[in-house]
Amino acid sequence: MSPREKEQQTSKGMADFCVRNINQAAYGRKEIDIAEQEMPGIMALRKRASEDRPLKGAKIVGCTHINAQTAVLIETLTELGAQVRWSACNIYSTQNEVAAALAEAGFSIFAWRGETEEDFWWCIDRCVTAENWQPNMILDDGGDATHLILKKYPAMFKMIKGIVEESVTGVHRLYQLSKTNKLTVPAMNVNDSVTKTKFDNLYSCKESIIDSLKRATDMMFGGKQVVVCGYGEVGKGCSQALKALGSVVYVTEIDPICALQACMDGFRVLKLSEVIRNVDLLITATGNKNVLTREYMDKMKSGAIVCNMGHSNTEIDVNSLRTPDLTWEKVRSQVDHVIWPDGKKIILLAEGRLVNLSCSSVSSFVVSITAATQALALIELFNAPAGRYKADVYLLPKKMDEYVASLHLPTFDAHLTELSDEQAKYMGLNKTGPFKPNYYRY
Amino acid sequence: MSPREKEQQTSKGMADFCVRNINQAAYGRKEIDIAEQEMPGIMALRKRASEDRPLKGAKIVGCTHINAQTAVLIETLTELGAQVRWSACNIYSTQNEVAAALAEAGFSIFAWRGETEEDFWWCIDRCVTAENWQPNMILDDGGDATHLILKKYPAMFKMIKGIVEESVTGVHRLYQLSKTNKLTVPAMNVNDSVTKTKFDNLYSCKESIIDSLKRATDMMFGGKQVVVCGYGEVGKGCSQALKALGSVVYVTEIDPICALQACMDGFRVLKLSEVIRNVDLLITATGNKNVLTREYMDKMKSGAIVCNMGHSNTEIDVNSLRTPDLTWEKVRSQVDHVIWPDGKKIILLAEGRLVNLSCSSVSSFVVSITAATQALALIELFNAPAGRYKADVYLLPKKMDEYVASLHLPTFDAHLTELSDEQAKYMGLNKTGPFKPNYYRY
Amino acid sequence: MSPREKEQQTSKGMADFCVRNINQAAYGRKEIDIAEQEMPGIMALRKRASEDRPLKGAKIVGCTHINAQTAVLIETLTELGAQVRWSACNIYSTQNEVAAALAEAGFSIFAWRGETEEDFWWCIDRCVTAENWQPNMILDDGGDATHLILKKYPAMFKMIKGIVEESVTGVHRLYQLSKTNKLTVPAMNVNDSVTKTKFDNLYSCKESIIDSLKRATDMMFGGKQVVVCGYGEVGKGCSQALKALGSVVYVTEIDPICALQACMDGFRVLKLSEVIRNVDLLITATGNKNVLTREYMDKMKSGAIVCNMGHSNTEIDVNSLRTPDLTWEKVRSQVDHVIWPDGKKIILLAEGRLVNLSCSSVSSFVVSITAATQALALIELFNAPAGRYKADVYLLPKKMDEYVASLHLPTFDAHLTELSDEQAKYMGLNKTGPFKPNYYRY
Amino acid sequence: MSPREKEQQTSKGMADFCVRNINQAAYGRKEIDIAEQEMPGIMALRKRASEDRPLKGAKIVGCTHINAQTAVLIETLTELGAQVRWSACNIYSTQNEVAAALAEAGFSIFAWRGETEEDFWWCIDRCVTAENWQPNMILDDGGDATHLILKKYPAMFKMIKGIVEESVTGVHRLYQLSKTNKLTVPAMNVNDSVTKTKFDNLYSCKESIIDSLKRATDMMFGGKQVVVCGYGEVGKGCSQALKALGSVVYVTEIDPICALQACMDGFRVLKLSEVIRNVDLLITATGNKNVLTREYMDKMKSGAIVCNMGHSNTEIDVNSLRTPDLTWEKVRSQVDHVIWPDGKKIILLAEGRLVNLSCSSVSSFVVSITAATQALALIELFNAPAGRYKADVYLLPKKMDEYVASLHLPTFDAHLTELSDEQAKYMGLNKTGPFKPNYYRY
Repeated sequence: MSPREKEQQTSKGMADFCVRNINQAAYGRKEIDIAEQEMPGIMALRKRASEDRPLKGAKIVGCTHINAQTAVLIETLTELGAQVRWSACNIYSTQNEVAAALAEAGFSIFAWRGETEEDFWWCIDRCVTAENWQPNMILDDGGDATHLILKKYPAMFKMIKGIVEESVTGVHRLYQLSKTNKLTVPAMNVNDSVTKTKFDNLYSCKESIIDSLKRATDMMFGGKQVVVCGYGEVGKGCSQALKALGSVVYVTEIDPICALQACMDGFRVLKLSEVIRNVDLLITATGNKNVLTREYMDKMKSGAIVCNMGHSNTEIDVNSLRTPDLTWEKVRSQVDHVIWPDGKKIILLAEGRLVNLSCSSVSSFVVSITAATQALALIELFNAPAGRYKADVYLLPKKMDEYVASLHLPTFDAHLTELSDEQAKYMGLNKTGPFKPNYYRY
Repeated sequence: MSPREKEQQTSKGMADFCVRNINQAAYGRKEIDIAEQEMPGIMALRKRASEDRPLKGAKIVGCTHINAQTAVLIETLTELGAQVRWSACNIYSTQNEVAAALAEAGFSIFAWRGETEEDFWWCIDRCVTAENWQPNMILDDGGDATHLILKKYPAMFKMIKGIVEESVTGVHRLYQLSKTNKLTVPAMNVNDSVTKTKFDNLYSCKESIIDSLKRATDMMFGGKQVVVCGYGEVGKGCSQALKALGSVVYVTEIDPICALQACMDGFRVLKLSEVIRNVDLLITATGNKNVLTREYMDKMKSGAIVCNMGHSNTEIDVNSLRTPDLTWEKVRSQVDHVIWPDGKKIILLAEGRLVNLSCSSVSSFVVSITAATQALALIELFNAPAGRYKADVYLLPKKMDEYVASLHLPTFDAHLTELSDEQAKYMGLNKTGPFKPNYYRY
Repeated sequence: MSPREKEQQTSKGMADFCVRNINQAAYGRKEIDIAEQEMPGIMALRKRASEDRPLKGAKIVGCTHINAQTAVLIETLTELGAQVRWSACNIYSTQNEVAAALAEAGFSIFAWRGETEEDFWWCIDRCVTAENWQPNMILDDGGDATHLILKKYPAMFKMIKGIVEESVTGVHRLYQLSKTNKLTVPAMNVNDSVTKTKFDNLYSCKESIIDSLKRATDMMFGGKQVVVCGYGEVGKGCSQALKALGSVVYVTEIDPICALQACMDGFRVLKLSEVIRNVDLLITATGNKNVLTREYMDKMKSGAIVCNMGHSNTEIDVNSLRTPDLTWEKVRSQVDHVIWPDGKKIILLAEGRLVNLSCSSVSSFVVSITAATQALALIELFNAPAGRYKADVYLLPKKMDEYVASLHLPTFDAHLTELSDEQAKYMGLNKTGPFKPNYYRY
Repeated sequence: MSPREKEQQTSKGMADFCVRNINQAAYGRKEIDIAEQEMPGIMALRKRASEDRPLKGAKIVGCTHINAQTAVLIETLTELGAQVRWSACNIYSTQNEVAAALAEAGFSIFAWRGETEEDFWWCIDRCVTAENWQPNMILDDGGDATHLILKKYPAMFKMIKGIVEESVTGVHRLYQLSKTNKLTVPAMNVNDSVTKTKFDNLYSCKESIIDSLKRATDMMFGGKQVVVCGYGEVGKGCSQALKALGSVVYVTEIDPICALQACMDGFRVLKLSEVIRNVDLLITATGNKNVLTREYMDKMKSGAIVCNMGHSNTEIDVNSLRTPDLTWEKVRSQVDHVIWPDGKKIILLAEGRLVNLSCSSVSSFVVSITAATQALALIELFNAPAGRYKADVYLLPKKMDEYVASLHLPTFDAHLTELSDEQAKYMGLNKTGPFKPNYYRY
């Protein structure tokens, strides 16, 4: 039976929600409790700002993945004064127990794992429209809530004070709207804020590539020959981590500046054709498509592992492996052996999708940074004096980005130095930041 | 029903074995096939020596863990000419499917997961005594087969040409026998051969500490404060791996030489009392007992993780945590939260047992080195001219150790340099080795 | 006798120059020959572009340091078609032999080591004004040639097609001119091109901090406690290099984003007051002033070394050490012992000036990158179609920066990958670059 | 005029010495003062043992290199109660000023830079024979004092209580004497004590290879292709240091165990013939001869650098480069360009001698470890109860080695942990050490 057909209500009689099973609330609450302990930054923000209540009056439509970490964000926004209604941005990713726990706590949550396409839009709609509810902020991940409101409720859309968007796709859609003058409210692109980017791309990948490979294959890294395709932030992280654990790493690059960096960092930069016969492990991290083609895989040695850390599922040409001459054998979840007629075996991870999302779990610490960035973007847009933001797409101001970083320093018992008056003057800086120009990305 | 009570026979009618379920043979065979691919060294030995059959005439009683990797060793020994009968050295560790596959292939295997103490000795006995069977070699892991024969069948013991023992415990028992003049046959201590030691202690731990911690806790390593107790080979491996992935690592040591090495390698050497309040992760690797006591754990901060990479389960005083004031909460397999009255939580892994054995899997590559070492030790003892070995405990000759290493170089596509005649003469070396004195361990 | 008072002419009778001693030409030529071998990028440019002669018609006034590497640049510009007249941007830095060699080769060089202030301006003037010489390009290092022409020859200034400026100071002066609308010609800021910056700040510092400290002090790095003030590119380079050689490195930072990066990279971030008593070595790399004050130095332990890798000579408050109670003892060139009344000794390098410039030599490879960048900026400005550049300050176009990088890849035998048509289309990129947006700086 | 012909006396009228120029004493004393500050371990020993005076009654003939660090050792031995007479073990290495300072302080020193062969033996003889002087200990470096006494004064030799020998050569000579039963007194081989070895071979080389190359060639390490021949302790140090600074390092090895270690540490193990055409830098560290032959050098690319970190000057076949077709050009001290007929240039450092001794200076910290080891060996032999040492060659007892290490820990502010009684018992250790078996070398 679809949750939409069930009568549901919380132990306190609240019924303005729709989840799989409200009885799972206790288990979900435990998950949220654990997440709180692992998300020091967002919890610090909750504590620091709970008196000011900077989101008092904010009515937020949220549409994101729903899991324990999101719950910590949602409850933080509420502590800061906001009212929220929330749906899922993906039909598969909802943690039902967490949705139940949020509903039980009185939140209007509309989400469950395994929604139909129709359910999906119904849930968003239920967040947007309700009695006595005129939303004024959108927190979006992919742009679906934004576009539903824009198209279906254009009058309501004009009342929105600001949109915060996290995903590449959603940001892309916002820029499209902006170009075509359809964007009538300010939007904040939090996908490209520097702190979030460094963690999503460099620091997180450094650890998750190691973790994913170990869990999926038990391979030893020492002495293995590895090629990393692409030496952007993700490629840098993968290369450094594997080198640090004793692999011999080669890099391929199209961009001479990144190639020169790879050289100076101690990696041989070669064409794939020069090393493909020797590598034990190949990782794609280019953002491009068909980086690893069948032609190359035909040349790889038996037992070689291939996986993708880059862009969606385009980098490895997996379709080229679905030919009658090759045999696929699922060895375990996320691990396929693709077997050539001569017995050669290539080990393909996560069918070419992002291996770190498929084979390891994202650290709560990384999510804490994203969540704090989202919360600050909401605060900034909601409280900005008239005129500061026009109907355009903005990056989070540097100072807010610095604030997100500072929220996470206590985890490392790190102590910042303060500028003296004299030093601040000499540098032409405010003592409380921002300390760097907005484009600073090193 | 106990396997001992079942009538069992293989598809070919062989009945001289006892396993849980002979019908699982096909699945076990698949596991063995996979293991063969990941054990290049032992497979190379099988190939190189299968013509010479250096174990022709050897009748081996084996008593080890029984899993896919052991099966590769057993079938290699047979290819080299040996006859074998095999039982398990541990009542819990047998992979039943593998035991079935071996039996189906005609091996007299006596082992299943979940033996009773009585079963255990019965199984060994069945390997030792059989019709038309006078064993002349023992491959032991812990010394139980050796001691059963010595005590129960002293006449048979005198016919043994050699014993190969892999474990610390078994080696210790052999030295005790030797001291008290009860050892009447030559024995080879393969536990301390340099190749095996480097892999068991340094290289394997470097990777498995990372793997275990990720699987058990999902912790990020970057920026975390870690203390490693002990800077022997295991401590060196753990310290280097965590530093390489961005942790700040402190070391404790009792031995000034190891302490000085830690300093030169870039680690602060401190007493536990100096850092205990700040660490996010504590790893014991001393070989000693009660290194981490309740007193220290009382001072640790909430959320800190503690685990043992050293000696059995003595290093962390786990018993001191089993007091009424502390609450234990099993979070998942091998992970306990121990909660203080004030809510402080220490995360204890594997209840203080070896975390890498409990929370990650041992690489087949490492096992391949051990297996090749065992096989060579058997060959050496079986073929040694009279007088080379007396009734004493020996280390594997350097040259054999070098041979084990050489069997594993092709995995890395590594190419050795050969000495010229002139160079060999200059160094006073034989061109085929050994290249270093027997005590060389760097 | 001042060179200005001497009659000088080359072996071929050319007299339009002024150097210290034309007879040193042969020795200077040898230096230039060596530099050519160590500057692969600029030599590659010379070779590739010598047929096209993209600077045909360019009349360049050059005003830079004059040394063997500059000579390679000057002769490259000429090979590419330019005419040049050249003076020094610093009264002390001219290598007289090189100046002589250039003059002997027919270049109008006006420069010698030890010019007076008056000589300095006279030399520039001689480059600007000559018979049949209307310069149309300026290559400046510090802005003196630019400003002399602007002030003294405003009509001539209007005929200039472009200015290329390398130094921070010169760039700053250009932006000032631009702001006040006095800049009437396009100018290229090559100081901030990404390739140059990465080499000047990260890669070069990584090696030169090690080199400088070894040459100046013979200190061992293993186990030493080091604090690096500032975790920008220079600080990152210093911290990584010292950690890699076994030092224990602490970082101080004012910017939470850089501080968080330091944490994730494995460095403890502390206030100077927390570690100052323990450090063996302190390096400033902040760009600020009075980072290391007397108050801190009073607390340092005897034998500690202090040096500056950051901004000019402001970071260490050296003046605060020039008090009657402290004794200065020059131990060797660039090394002073500053001795406290109680015998405590601080080892000050280069009197707080940039230690890598003072105590080690800049790699020709790094200079090759700068020189190639300057040459390409000249080519771009000289050949740009009308309207591409207005009277403003520009960064070198990304594509040119990429070209500079590509010129230096053969040194490392690095081989770039080329995009397929399909891939280029997918990424929306031209197959020949640029591959990244202009602000990309990772 | 030879010092032997001069009348010399100190300011206090002492004349029992022979140095180049007693008037240089003040300058030499300053050098000794500086050395004292950089040799914390030996100074700590001086302080700790000066009350006990464990060398009271010892009459030591010393024959070593004479420099500031030796002076610190000599004055320490005296503080501990010994009387000494000292000569040089090398005709070129004496620092005349230091010899003068020692003489001025009342020591009977017989040494100057540039002795003839005859002078050399005369100086040793003057140390051995003097009025009222029956030496009872020898501190030797190379065995010359030992052999002079043995041959020339056999009666005196029998009165010697012990010999301490530091060099490989001297140790070899002692073992020869022992084999042929000519060694009638106990001798201590301090060359192979573990602390000394680790510092001489691993830690010291790690830093000095970097230092030597920078000073000699100014090369950048980033991205350079390097081959290190030999992966013993020296090769390990060189490989790790260069990798850490961004070089791509290949290793050649003859020993499969060392080769496997190189693989696991992340280095490709290849034959020289496979990489020789590509390398920018080649370092020999094998202990063998003719590792780099003319045949290989014929294949190297122009600009490649070759140097030796291994054994004396045999590893690079320098003689093969002294043929009429090659031109040698001395570029600076210790740097030769060897030029092939086609213009190809190989950069040879230190003419194939040990590059770190030739192109960088040995750290006082390393010398402090050697000196402390020598002093403790003298104390041990002098104070050992009758029967502990026979007429044989011994290694320094582990416990003494540990003591040397402990003397150097305060430099790093390192704090040792102490075993509890319970732990010591569990391990079967004495709480004050030794903590490892004597052969422990990891």
